[in-house]
Amino acid sequence: MKNSIGTSVILTLFGESHGEAIGAVLDGLAPGIVIDEAFIARQMEKRRGIASLSTSRREADKVRILSGVFEGKTTGTPIAFLIENESQKSGDYSKMKTIARPSHADYAAQLKYHGFQDHRGGGHFSGRITAGIVAAGSVCLDALRKKGIMVGTHILSCGGINDRHFDDYISDFKALDEAETPILSSESKEKIEKLIEQKRSEGDSAGGVLETAVTGLPGGVGEPWFSSIESELSRALFAIPAVKGIQFGAGFDFASMSGSEANDAFVTDGQTIKTVTNNNGGINGGISNGMPIVFSLAVKPTPSIFKEQDTVDFASMTNGKLSIEGRHDPAIIHRAAVVVGSLTAIVLCDLLALRFGTDYLAE
Amino acid sequence: MKNSIGTSVILTLFGESHGEAIGAVLDGLAPGIVIDEAFIARQMEKRRGIASLSTSRREADKVRILSGVFEGKTTGTPIAFLIENESQKSGDYSKMKTIARPSHADYAAQLKYHGFQDHRGGGHFSGRITAGIVAAGSVCLDALRKKGIMVGTHILSCGGINDRHFDDYISDFKALDEAETPILSSESKEKIEKLIEQKRSEGDSAGGVLETAVTGLPGGVGEPWFSSIESELSRALFAIPAVKGIQFGAGFDFASMSGSEANDAFVTDGQTIKTVTNNNGGINGGISNGMPIVFSLAVKPTPSIFKEQDTVDFASMTNGKLSIEGRHDPAIIHRAAVVVGSLTAIVLCDLLALRFGTDYLAE
Amino acid sequence: MKNSIGTSVILTLFGESHGEAIGAVLDGLAPGIVIDEAFIARQMEKRRGIASLSTSRREADKVRILSGVFEGKTTGTPIAFLIENESQKSGDYSKMKTIARPSHADYAAQLKYHGFQDHRGGGHFSGRITAGIVAAGSVCLDALRKKGIMVGTHILSCGGINDRHFDDYISDFKALDEAETPILSSESKEKIEKLIEQKRSEGDSAGGVLETAVTGLPGGVGEPWFSSIESELSRALFAIPAVKGIQFGAGFDFASMSGSEANDAFVTDGQTIKTVTNNNGGINGGISNGMPIVFSLAVKPTPSIFKEQDTVDFASMTNGKLSIEGRHDPAIIHRAAVVVGSLTAIVLCDLLALRFGTDYLAE
Amino acid sequence: MKNSIGTSVILTLFGESHGEAIGAVLDGLAPGIVIDEAFIARQMEKRRGIASLSTSRREADKVRILSGVFEGKTTGTPIAFLIENESQKSGDYSKMKTIARPSHADYAAQLKYHGFQDHRGGGHFSGRITAGIVAAGSVCLDALRKKGIMVGTHILSCGGINDRHFDDYISDFKALDEAETPILSSESKEKIEKLIEQKRSEGDSAGGVLETAVTGLPGGVGEPWFSSIESELSRALFAIPAVKGIQFGAGFDFASMSGSEANDAFVTDGQTIKTVTNNNGGINGGISNGMPIVFSLAVKPTPSIFKEQDTVDFASMTNGKLSIEGRHDPAIIHRAAVVVGSLTAIVLCDLLALRFGTDYLAE
Repeated sequence: MKNSIGTSVILTLFGESHGEAIGAVLDGLAPGIVIDEAFIARQMEKRRGIASLSTSRREADKVRILSGVFEGKTTGTPIAFLIENESQKSGDYSKMKTIARPSHADYAAQLKYHGFQDHRGGGHFSGRITAGIVAAGSVCLDALRKKGIMVGTHILSCGGINDRHFDDYISDFKALDEAETPILSSESKEKIEKLIEQKRSEGDSAGGVLETAVTGLPGGVGEPWFSSIESELSRALFAIPAVKGIQFGAGFDFASMSGSEANDAFVTDGQTIKTVTNNNGGINGGISNGMPIVFSLAVKPTPSIFKEQDTVDFASMTNGKLSIEGRHDPAIIHRAAVVVGSLTAIVLCDLLALRFGTDYLAE
Repeated sequence: MKNSIGTSVILTLFGESHGEAIGAVLDGLAPGIVIDEAFIARQMEKRRGIASLSTSRREADKVRILSGVFEGKTTGTPIAFLIENESQKSGDYSKMKTIARPSHADYAAQLKYHGFQDHRGGGHFSGRITAGIVAAGSVCLDALRKKGIMVGTHILSCGGINDRHFDDYISDFKALDEAETPILSSESKEKIEKLIEQKRSEGDSAGGVLETAVTGLPGGVGEPWFSSIESELSRALFAIPAVKGIQFGAGFDFASMSGSEANDAFVTDGQTIKTVTNNNGGINGGISNGMPIVFSLAVKPTPSIFKEQDTVDFASMTNGKLSIEGRHDPAIIHRAAVVVGSLTAIVLCDLLALRFGTDYLAE
Repeated sequence: MKNSIGTSVILTLFGESHGEAIGAVLDGLAPGIVIDEAFIARQMEKRRGIASLSTSRREADKVRILSGVFEGKTTGTPIAFLIENESQKSGDYSKMKTIARPSHADYAAQLKYHGFQDHRGGGHFSGRITAGIVAAGSVCLDALRKKGIMVGTHILSCGGINDRHFDDYISDFKALDEAETPILSSESKEKIEKLIEQKRSEGDSAGGVLETAVTGLPGGVGEPWFSSIESELSRALFAIPAVKGIQFGAGFDFASMSGSEANDAFVTDGQTIKTVTNNNGGINGGISNGMPIVFSLAVKPTPSIFKEQDTVDFASMTNGKLSIEGRHDPAIIHRAAVVVGSLTAIVLCDLLALRFGTDYLAE
Repeated sequence: MKNSIGTSVILTLFGESHGEAIGAVLDGLAPGIVIDEAFIARQMEKRRGIASLSTSRREADKVRILSGVFEGKTTGTPIAFLIENESQKSGDYSKMKTIARPSHADYAAQLKYHGFQDHRGGGHFSGRITAGIVAAGSVCLDALRKKGIMVGTHILSCGGINDRHFDDYISDFKALDEAETPILSSESKEKIEKLIEQKRSEGDSAGGVLETAVTGLPGGVGEPWFSSIESELSRALFAIPAVKGIQFGAGFDFASMSGSEANDAFVTDGQTIKTVTNNNGGINGGISNGMPIVFSLAVKPTPSIFKEQDTVDFASMTNGKLSIEGRHDPAIIHRAAVVVGSLTAIVLCDLLALRFGTDYLAE
């Protein structure tokens, strides 16, 4: 499926950083979902990140919906989202054509596309392509919300500085929704913003961990083995540039736990069943058990840094030094948060439609 | 795709722990690959685990190949692997029908299958189903080896005890191939075996981390965005029961690294290009860069323990205590290692066939 | 997907004519569907055809269900059907290894599999593989029947002799269910049986047309463009060896009709809407409109004939004469009818699950 | 996959007749293919049809390529084609919102989309959406041509008037390429154009049969059972509105042939093997045998006619009379020809990439 994902609700991405436009097609979403253009715009704004922490490329990223929406509601047919590229300056990139920027896709792309790839600004591998995900994901987040399914993401750590874990999901989600930077503790927020500022001044960058939670997902969603919730979410989320790890619930902490510590005891709660702990992140056997879905993602430091680096020109096969010029972010983790939530929403809409039918999310 | 995975080389799983038989169908593998039945048997033996550390269910797990092989070689058409269930004792399980074992799939399966699921021994969610993966994966491992592509997996940690990382891949792979338990350092091996033995005596269990490496994979394999190597491997590997996390290269360690530490500098090496470090685990932009693929998996402690646990009977909606009887493993991580290598091989055969055509692996 | 088809309900085929066994895996069918083994056996018997018109290969074709059924009902997990090959006599085929039988897959398979294919009796291209389709389809037909959805197929023509079209679907379906040979008019039945007998005596074979109808399918099923009902059914049905054409409703007769003749006028019928004619075969824009689905299939004459034919030995690249020995059918159209109904049922179960969710067909 | 098709080369469609824009995304095509904008424009012009026979909606249909092309060549990443809708006049359609036009998708769409569909001009079910197919198909036709694979389509019959069959493929393809209307015999062309003109004057419409041939396709392409060439082509081609039948080679004529007449005898031709006849349309067992692929399609008469028809208003559930106003075609078969060739090219590029790898069509 390459640039597409999903079985019943299917997302397809296209575009290059410095091409004419980027976008996405979202097929199979239920009819009748109200399009909230202000919400889409707000999510797009979050993806751009707050000015002080982010790139100097500040496009309006206006989303044009070309199809699949009629009289303000989804029709059930493919929704095409188009975002024009405005500020591309190709001149910046011509001398970089055969330079393999460390930890970027340049060299891998050369091996795959033999020099025909659009190398400017990372081309099709650019984080810019995530704008299409955010546009499509906004509609899915809205559709889920009407069903009482909420998604929230925050920076759990950045450059060694930790945020607290989720506590009260609903109030935390609300706070994140309103926050400029997706961090729960105001103390951590201050420290992390300072750290990113410091990385910028050093010509360096920082990575981190994002934590996401989903509440309200019905139990019994997901399919055994290769369409487990973990399988479907991880497949989607590893598409995000810079994501290099994912863990559900206790994740890698399971490694030093014993079974008696790790197991989530079941207990009745009125007419429902819940678990006392949620080390499994709401998923047993790949299928939702009614508890919140919780996972976290490792985000590597932005590879574009000002500091001089060793590299290779793969045309001349010569070693050299590289000092990347132009705009780049000392961190992208705060911008990635909204992409993670968007892709999560798209995957869940797919799993719900597959489980309960294509009308499930219809109003 | 549910119980199937792959685009050009497609694996389909079937079976229940206590049904008549389990198995797998592997479709699309190149013709002409020699079937090494002794190797298959050896891999199946590894999946069962050494007797001292493993379950008392000790079936022969003889693999019968029903199709897709002619005169000792693959034909290119679907290969069906059949493994009869011999020692199922259904009597053990009847009283467990509506008991939600903590951290097992029982309750999630109830929400999805409404009581029609085969509950005996975990049914379709049982780790036993991985036997079909190992059978199919053995043929794929053989096919890859002929192309110089090698896969190795070891226990990086178990219950807090660490093994060393891979050092010389080829000699490490060879040692692992011959080892009873997949641990590189003999000192760690002794400690981990002792720890598992201790967990058994306590009626408890241990989890851990598996580390896998792939050498010899050509660069330029993988597809952008949703068929990245990370996406495809993670989707497959999260199917394995107990896997709750995956990280590629430095993974979650990226969170506290700066870009200048994290970036893998490129350097020429004769006529090829390699990286000085391999923090990206051989993958840039989702595509192989020619360096070894390296990833690790979080494996949760076996949920079946003898210690008494709190649980719910979802038929009567009553809380109660559970003491699981019968055979179960104090750890399955040593058994999971061969499953991970098998699935990895299947995914890589798929990506290679998609990239280079269906004859690529043919002899 | 190669040997698999479906999105939510997925069928996977395996096996060769003279291998150890053939079979199918049916994944994603709803839980709780009662398995009627007598019905499966009856359908298998129909696939074998009545003795007087069919091959001398008369295996019992006992279907063994390996998984996905518990206490007589589907569990919702993959159902594996296994049919052992009993009477294979490989000796018959050794001298045929490099002979391209006219209108068989032998030469095309050689181009694809480079000599590694199992050539005996057509190998994986044998009509015998349809036995797995019939086994899986029997369960799907049963599941549909509980929802009031019925499928019937008859021989519309054979060797130039026509049967009448469907008249009263319900009574026609009932008659076909009980008939030894699927022909509606007893006069046509006599003529067609005589024609097939004559072809046998001439060492020749006959083709024909099968007509299928589906009643009770809800409107609004099918997806626009590439998952139209026509797209999904045709993709499935062209898998059947010998099928070389398909037409829905008036099909090729549309070519000489004017729009005013061809259009199906809508008219109310109490609280529902129907069409006065059904030239579109119950499908508009790829989506069911509530009228019966009607289509017909062109079935080519069995290519295996006793008459001497010109052919090539592709190993020696020499021209020669071929007289096919062994058992073969003067017609397979009466046997193909049950395969068509089975595949139709499988495709409809898939489309219904995709539309209304995986529980739709659950009891 | 709904509005997407393909495994390695994947086409996704979006748009509505009277929405903002329509388009297509073509993912997975090899890098390095030269984009011939003049050829794309010429194909788009053919899809619009010559003025005398076609609709009064005469948009420029300028194709904007948004991505996947760099310096005039494909990059290997998704190519997005955008065609703005210029002349939509929504006012025409408001009173038609709940009228089920006979043989149109209106009522089926209502059952599926519950009134949220864009009803104007057929919305997503409009033949206008085929413009995206033609844009994408033009690039694929070009890619195939460089490999010596040629595709041609002509009107085999229209309203009962026949064209001759293909004779010399190469010269016939050349003539069709240059022809205004895709008919081989000039005598037939005259008659058919006259017939269409007559239908227009009667307020009626005509259907017909299209015949397509593909030369130069290597043998050994296609996959057994559900990815047979017949399966893949038919799945794609039934997406085209008005296509209601497809037959390969002799197709429905097989029904009255005997095996000895129908079988295609093999014969050597220097170092290659060919067949004396080509009743199987170049496909045995679903796989190409090296002979030309030949198939034909039944195209129903355009359902939009001026003549008064019986119909239903599904909002008020009342019967009534309908006289369709506005622009519509007395025939679309001459316009459909280029759509058929385009989709055929897309499907073949997919099958070739799957068989020989993603670089196969690269320059």
